[in-house]
Amino acid sequence: MPPHTVAAFDAELKELRAAVQSMAATVDVQLTQLAEAIGDRQSDVAQNIIAMDRMVDRMQSEIEEKIIHIIALRQPVAVDLREIIATLKIAADLERIGDLAKNCAKRLLTMTGPVQQPETMSTLLSLANQAQSQVVDVMTAFAARDAEGASKVWHSDGTIDNLYAALFRELLTYMMEDPRNIGFCTHLLFCAKNLERVGDHATNIAENVNFIVTGEQIGIDRPKGDSPTASILATTKVQ
Amino acid sequence: MPPHTVAAFDAELKELRAAVQSMAATVDVQLTQLAEAIGDRQSDVAQNIIAMDRMVDRMQSEIEEKIIHIIALRQPVAVDLREIIATLKIAADLERIGDLAKNCAKRLLTMTGPVQQPETMSTLLSLANQAQSQVVDVMTAFAARDAEGASKVWHSDGTIDNLYAALFRELLTYMMEDPRNIGFCTHLLFCAKNLERVGDHATNIAENVNFIVTGEQIGIDRPKGDSPTASILATTKVQ
Repeated sequence: MPPHTVAAFDAELKELRAAVQSMAATVDVQLTQLAEAIGDRQSDVAQNIIAMDRMVDRMQSEIEEKIIHIIALRQPVAVDLREIIATLKIAADLERIGDLAKNCAKRLLTMTGPVQQPETMSTLLSLANQAQSQVVDVMTAFAARDAEGASKVWHSDGTIDNLYAALFRELLTYMMEDPRNIGFCTHLLFCAKNLERVGDHATNIAENVNFIVTGEQIGIDRPKGDSPTASILATTKVQ
Repeated sequence: MPPHTVAAFDAELKELRAAVQSMAATVDVQLTQLAEAIGDRQSDVAQNIIAMDRMVDRMQSEIEEKIIHIIALRQPVAVDLREIIATLKIAADLERIGDLAKNCAKRLLTMTGPVQQPETMSTLLSLANQAQSQVVDVMTAFAARDAEGASKVWHSDGTIDNLYAALFRELLTYMMEDPRNIGFCTHLLFCAKNLERVGDHATNIAENVNFIVTGEQIGIDRPKGDSPTASILATTKVQ
């Protein structure tokens, strides 16, 4: 590329990175507010999380447009192309995290009565905090092109799985104790599952950060944590 | 491009399309077997669905590699670039559908006893059939570059949402009637949610097929169906 084209390309890549970081910051606000909404269940906070989801969707569309523009105009290769493709996938993961936060917020909004089991909400809060910190850590690794930081996030998904499994067990117990808990606990089961999925998306992002930096895929055998609850249910004394 | 390059590029694009269709065919086998597994809960069928997931993951990786290769070598623009980017996203949706089928299969495997509520399994089967037919239809639209066919899939996501909402209501009722149903019904709640998500992924694919054909994004206001159950739970007479 001639020098002025290189300069323009560099500027566009920087702009793309900034757009992804801004999208991540917006999702982070959603997750912070989700933790607040779990804590005190103020409906305006939950409403805000839902409203922000449109912004996140729009940011993802803009990132995709930027990417198509950069590929068409600059015809990137090697490490630049790798970064651009990985960025497209990271934006998709962030969009989905925003969706999952919105879904939790909607569920919290329908839970209007007093919570009979405050300890459940406290486990849910720990899960939300852990999920958020995975997202923050992996986006810090993205900003710093830090494969080691990404790998740390990749390996710590088990903490979320354990919290999720503990909460799942608690919720099943409450449901069995009293059928009046079933509606409420079903909401929390799905919230918990959503937060466990947020952790999975952070793991996906970690894989993409690693790909940007090293050009290699982390093995396919990662703990996907898609059913740490299967064994719980298998040992639950019901059918 | 010189003529021989054009010919090579065309061949690569065809190969890419064939790879996506082969991935979709594999996911379709998973969904067919899932319907079978719901019908008679034979563990070997469920095991097979789980085993196939690795193949699906590998196919996605290969499609991504092909795409990076094509972009780097052929520097596509306009409609070709649009198709390639949309294909990347479609492969990600197919991979996720395979994951969701696997998760359902794992849950079915833990349900070893006789089913007390056969009608629930029959609603779950309808949901699985509907989800599968959405995936088949949208991939037919992909193969034919048929925006109208894609739009039909996009608009019919409501059928899945309705089936899901009906099943959700049934399951809650069974859980409230008898706490011994809770373990079993919790599995089915998550299976149902997974199948509803399969429908969402078919909707995503429909959007991408439309983007390939028309170059335009279908509006952001689609029914994402992320909580048709919130209203059910809100009116459920529990806390």
